Formats: sequence, C-alpha cells, structure tokens
Amino acid sequence: MSEPTERTTVRRLPEKAVTDRSVLDAILDEALVAHVALAEGDQPFVLPMACARDGDRLLLHGSTGSRLMRALAAGAPTCATVTLLDGLVFARSAFESSMHYRSATILGRASVVPQEELVDALRVLTEHLLPGRWAHLRPPQRKELAATMVLALPLQEWSVKVGDGWPEDDPADLGADVWAGVLPLRTTAGPPRPAPDLAAGIEVPDHVRTRYPS
Amino acid sequence: MSEPTERTTVRRLPEKAVTDRSVLDAILDEALVAHVALAEGDQPFVLPMACARDGDRLLLHGSTGSRLMRALAAGAPTCATVTLLDGLVFARSAFESSMHYRSATILGRASVVPQEELVDALRVLTEHLLPGRWAHLRPPQRKELAATMVLALPLQEWSVKVGDGWPEDDPADLGADVWAGVLPLRTTAGPPRPAPDLAAGIEVPDHVRTRYPS
Repeated sequence: MSEPTERTTVRRLPEKAVTDRSVLDAILDEALVAHVALAEGDQPFVLPMACARDGDRLLLHGSTGSRLMRALAAGAPTCATVTLLDGLVFARSAFESSMHYRSATILGRASVVPQEELVDALRVLTEHLLPGRWAHLRPPQRKELAATMVLALPLQEWSVKVGDGWPEDDPADLGADVWAGVLPLRTTAGPPRPAPDLAAGIEVPDHVRTRYPS
Repeated sequence: MSEPTERTTVRRLPEKAVTDRSVLDAILDEALVAHVALAEGDQPFVLPMACARDGDRLLLHGSTGSRLMRALAAGAPTCATVTLLDGLVFARSAFESSMHYRSATILGRASVVPQEELVDALRVLTEHLLPGRWAHLRPPQRKELAATMVLALPLQEWSVKVGDGWPEDDPADLGADVWAGVLPLRTTAGPPRPAPDLAAGIEVPDHVRTRYPS
C-alpha cells in the first residue's frame, strides 16, 4: 500500500512503524511461517501456516481438509502475521527491557490458487522454504495437487513494525552497575540427519548444507 | 484440560495432536512470543506479544495504550498461538516436504493482572525472557507499573500439535537419487553487543552469555 489505512495505522510505538514496501518484502522473504487468523463470531482462531511471498501476494500452504483453509477459501477476512525475532534487549530496568523484532501484519481476503497455477505456486513455496530443492524433485502428481490448497493473500493492506534500537534507559539508571546491550539471535542448523530409508551413497547436497548457517 | 473440547479437537493430521499437559508447558517455556488474536466483527487481528507461562496461565505483556490489550482486558475472547520451528523435512517429493514444529493454541478470555500482583508477574516474565536478570535490576517504579499491563490467559482450553517425524515418502519415490532427511533448526546467539552508553569495565555477565548457545 502507499498509505496505511485506518486499521493498519500503527498506534502503539508509532516510531517503530515502517511503510517501506521493501521492508515488508524482506520480512516475508525470511519467514517460514505466518500466523493466520479467522474470526468465528467473536472468537478468533490462529494457526501457523507455511508461507512464501510471490510478488505482490503471500502464498499460504495448507490442506484442502483444514477448516481454517476452507473458511479462508470461502472468502472470510483474515489476518496473517509474521514475526522474526532478532535479539534480546537487556536494559537497566525491567520496564525498558525488550526485544529486537520485525513484524508484518497483512489484512485482507485470500483467494484459492487455481489448479492450473498450482504447480507454479508449489514451486515458489518449495523454493522459498527449501531453496534449490525443486530441481531435484519429480513433478507433483495429479492426486497430490487435488489434495493441496494454496491460498494467495494480496499485499495490499499491511503494517510493519521494527524494533531494533539500543536500550532506552532512564538517565537515572545509567549509573547502575548493570550490563546493558543487545544479544543478537538467529536461526542456525544442526547437522543434517539422513532419513532411515535413505539409500547408501547419497550425500548431503549443498542446498541442504547451506540452507542455514551451522 | 483433561479432554479436548469441540473447538480444540485437532481435525487435520490428528495423529500429530498431543494432549499431554507437560508438552504444552515445554512449548510455552521455550517460546518468547505468542501470536495473540482479537476478532472485531468478522475481521481478526493478530499481534505478537511477549509471553511467559506462570503455572496454569500464560502471561502476556503489553502496554496499557494498545487497542488489542484494552479489548482483551475488557474480556474479549482471544486465541494465543505459540509456534516453535524445530527443523526442515526434506522429502523426495514437494508434497511430502514439511517442517518439524511444536505448536500450541490456547483459547479463552484473559484477565488483567491486578496492580498488587504486577511486580510478581513482571518478575516471571523477565525471568522467562532473560533468566537470571531480575536480581540485577532495580525494582519497578510506581509510574512504570501504572504504564504496564499484563494479561493472564488460563491454560484451560488448548491444543498442541507436534510434527517431528521422518519424511513419509511414497514407496514409489524411495528409489529416487534424492537426499532425504531432516535439517534441525535452533535459535543461537551472536556475540553480545554492549550499549553505546555502557560504562567502562562492566563485563558481559553469565546470564547474558549463556542465554542461548552461540
């Protein structure tokens, strides 16, 4: 969006609000999971779903059998929120202690990716979650496509918040004998674990080994 | 809860549903953030909030000024979902590719932690997010407490899903010359970054250094 709407205007800590689309894209391009919501009466439900940005839309992957997916496929308004935790902020008081994070919230209605576009959508999802993987896999089968639903949520109404500063301690606390700063956090990989039924002689490929820093 | 209710019964992949309370506790005790939802009419909203389990309730930390917090404080039904990503599952087909995850969803109504219990709640939150930190910090001030809201969501109606298996490939795919297995993921810390206004001679304490593996 060019301008926040009434319901995507960040009211809390507005100095942390970001309206630069490239920041939204960067968050979505790093996230594996979105928390996707549905309102049923006054009760909200939130479930994690695998996600991938595809240009101006966020793809959400689920099963045709899921109640949430079916409701969203039928046009129910949704909210998809993605949060990346980048660090812990150790301030000199509990009150100023916080986290480094990047969070994106997208409002709207999703549409079902039609069967004739489903292979492309699955390629985008697979290449986002497991970059370099698609070329190694056989094409999806008809029965697999029939059992798969991908939703596309347009990136039209969204907001982004980024917390990335130093602790903002009360000047009266600066003399305390307390370490203050930031502990950066990141996702790393342990050693790949081969499947028990993996044939002998198949080595761990680069696209697995380099997926995350180890 | 002892038994799932109608709305917390896991319908999708029910073999991944877990009803053991100790599994719920372990997920909440590892999570820093919950995705907390509110329904306004048919539009759901989801925001990340710092969280900490306190016995049979989940504490959620926010500001008295947040619209979401105010609505939840007024008794609106909510859903708090916590998701931990434990790995990427590389199967021999896109269809069977998945993730290792542990996810907990809690439904209910939150209550506001009263001012006289707020210091205890902030201690639980701080010690969950930054273990060992509380003893180093001065007590919260009255004005800080007045600007802080902590919500408590009872752990009564909840569901847990855990995905932790090997790729379940179609037997016809087992002969493919494709590596299959799991890449475990975890959160690790980079080197602590001291605040620019940190006084000389204050070393990084153990509770910061050991918060996450480096």
